[in-house]
Amino acid sequence: MDMKTRPAIDRLRIDGARLWASLMELARIGATPKGGVCRLTLTDLDKQGRDLVLGWARAAGMEVVIDKIGNGFMRRPGRNNSLPPVVTGSHIDTQPTGGKFDGNYGVLAGLEVVRTLNDHGVQTEAPIEVAFWTNEEGSRFVPVMMGSGVFAKAFTLEHAYAAKDVDGKTVRGELERIGYIGPQEPGEHPIGCYFETHIEQGPVLEDNDKVIGVVGGVLGIRWYDCTVTGMEAHAGPTPMALRKDALQVATRLMQEVVACAHRHPPHGRGTVGMVQVHPNSRNVIPGRVKFSIDLRNATDALCDAMDADIRGVAAKLTAETGLPIQIDLVSHYPAQPFHPDCIAAVARATEKLGYSHMPCVSGAGHDAVYMARLAPAGMIFIPCKDGISHNEIEDAKPEHITAGCNVLLHAMLERAGVAG
Amino acid sequence: MDMKTRPAIDRLRIDGARLWASLMELARIGATPKGGVCRLTLTDLDKQGRDLVLGWARAAGMEVVIDKIGNGFMRRPGRNNSLPPVVTGSHIDTQPTGGKFDGNYGVLAGLEVVRTLNDHGVQTEAPIEVAFWTNEEGSRFVPVMMGSGVFAKAFTLEHAYAAKDVDGKTVRGELERIGYIGPQEPGEHPIGCYFETHIEQGPVLEDNDKVIGVVGGVLGIRWYDCTVTGMEAHAGPTPMALRKDALQVATRLMQEVVACAHRHPPHGRGTVGMVQVHPNSRNVIPGRVKFSIDLRNATDALCDAMDADIRGVAAKLTAETGLPIQIDLVSHYPAQPFHPDCIAAVARATEKLGYSHMPCVSGAGHDAVYMARLAPAGMIFIPCKDGISHNEIEDAKPEHITAGCNVLLHAMLERAGVAG
Repeated sequence: MDMKTRPAIDRLRIDGARLWASLMELARIGATPKGGVCRLTLTDLDKQGRDLVLGWARAAGMEVVIDKIGNGFMRRPGRNNSLPPVVTGSHIDTQPTGGKFDGNYGVLAGLEVVRTLNDHGVQTEAPIEVAFWTNEEGSRFVPVMMGSGVFAKAFTLEHAYAAKDVDGKTVRGELERIGYIGPQEPGEHPIGCYFETHIEQGPVLEDNDKVIGVVGGVLGIRWYDCTVTGMEAHAGPTPMALRKDALQVATRLMQEVVACAHRHPPHGRGTVGMVQVHPNSRNVIPGRVKFSIDLRNATDALCDAMDADIRGVAAKLTAETGLPIQIDLVSHYPAQPFHPDCIAAVARATEKLGYSHMPCVSGAGHDAVYMARLAPAGMIFIPCKDGISHNEIEDAKPEHITAGCNVLLHAMLERAGVAG
Repeated sequence: MDMKTRPAIDRLRIDGARLWASLMELARIGATPKGGVCRLTLTDLDKQGRDLVLGWARAAGMEVVIDKIGNGFMRRPGRNNSLPPVVTGSHIDTQPTGGKFDGNYGVLAGLEVVRTLNDHGVQTEAPIEVAFWTNEEGSRFVPVMMGSGVFAKAFTLEHAYAAKDVDGKTVRGELERIGYIGPQEPGEHPIGCYFETHIEQGPVLEDNDKVIGVVGGVLGIRWYDCTVTGMEAHAGPTPMALRKDALQVATRLMQEVVACAHRHPPHGRGTVGMVQVHPNSRNVIPGRVKFSIDLRNATDALCDAMDADIRGVAAKLTAETGLPIQIDLVSHYPAQPFHPDCIAAVARATEKLGYSHMPCVSGAGHDAVYMARLAPAGMIFIPCKDGISHNEIEDAKPEHITAGCNVLLHAMLERAGVAG
């Protein structure tokens, strides 16, 4: 057919209005008065959301498979079904005060790609699949990115099943209750390559006035607990020279956390988010200050360098002030670069479509991080208003929603190949 | 008699062993297992302590007067009883985890002065009085320094009476219950001049290896609440250049609180004791940081200069970063210089006795601050171990206890005059 010619394929565009309408319809399940969505994983509302999406998939002629952790795979066969599928997806669970787009956009963008291919009678060489992953948010059950993590064998199915919410309900029990324990063993499902479309959840694209972020990878994260020990004393009778003020040493190190990020550009990030001062009394010189350090960078080598940097600064501060500083690594997520072929496919699709774009990194985790351990993977970011996410006021422009989905369409077509 | 000759008077010394024994006996009332004292104001234990001290005073031939706020005045008449008395005193209430010396030393040192004068048959020209002031500590009822504050009309008797403890019991009710509402109107009691002997509650004397601190005055205090407002954002997706990190601006100002104290030597003090970070989450850039500022210096003019300094620094930080900083003055205690005559009397007594000494300031409030509003006043400090006070491990050396009391004896004798 005509659509199979290269120029015709190049002119293929998704239906932005249909995609937007689907997003708005899904967002009604768990809609909050402030315009957000509260659809926590494995609740009745999550079941309604899953049922709606799978209903749309079946209506689009797709085959549905659910695995034992409740991940859903919606398949559009290709010409050569012995090829591993080109997969896209994300999640449809939300934060308690979540928005309409986080995760949901990635799943419905995949569905819109399939609907578009159907409309135009395009057959791909490899099959195409759209996945939703169970409990990406982690706000009801930990760990986060649970479905994709079990799938990638980052942790076991049993571990995930045993996770409990605040009421003591387990993942296994809740999966059974909503009818989403499927027959397939997680991970026993081929992935040819993986794309995920997502709102940026940060301010970079908006700040640079770009429509598409070509995501090169996900930053590695190191989380530390840091404790500075001084000596409590009365603020009045203790002159400056005789103090062991833990907060004064701690605040210098807090400044250095940010300086350390600036010393490791362009992707170095350093944050102190949590501070506890002891005894936290107005007229007592702090005897102990505990605070968190969050360091991120694009490669593990750079994360190692930041680790050494901040430990070196702390050692110098201790040598200078005599106050001991303890730095404990409490969590560690390796950096995850995406596959050059997938990054290139996204970049080429964006170029072809004529959207403004820039290379970027993801500072937060996504299901794509686990998929990248199994197959070539890549991500497509679009701007979100003021960089705000995990918030009911999360917002994205319809034209950006459309653009990201068009990029997904063409990147997937490049990887899947057009039959004929 | 022989004692009335100048050389004999100069050789007069208190009985250090007797003073120490009295301190240890009083410390048994409310003694804690860790070696401290818990004798909160207006409790049954406070009544026992008051009764013991007044019993000792009566045994020493003193006349006892109690006023309506429970302040006790123990009087040793002089030759000329139309002269206003030379008064010394302090308090015998303690912190919940207090030590044996804070306050108690000042009262019992006064009693030991009287006992010594009795032993040697010394008659003074002016009468001598020893006072204990109700509720100096303020840990059960606020305001602190309640008895001396009512006496000096810093606030009214009614205001003090109405103060409630955590169980809702009032000062008036508790004073009545322990039988310590006396007939005298607070303040209607002449004070010729006032001395107070006290442990330093700081590390300066110990650090300088001096036995006596000749106290020039009490530092003025300014208490502020400070709030820096930024913008909460995820630590991952938000690059350094696009952050409004309230903590990074707050920590610079916290550093400047200490720098400001160093810019106003030798008595400038700057402390940040209390910090609240919002939302205080490991992977969220702080959107708001609230913290306390405590600035102290020896004169109100220097306190004003520190106030202007820190506000100027905050304004520069706001101009540089764009983050608003609000600084609210929440409490204000004026500086209280002591009277040159009393300071000189303490210095001369110390010189005469041959003790090592240094001029110093009090960084904390004492009853002497209110007395200085009514009459010439001065204080005598002795070292306490590691500068620690308001703690069960508070400690002082017997030889320092003795030395401070000898200084008190000779300073009071200078002011009272020896009859004959």
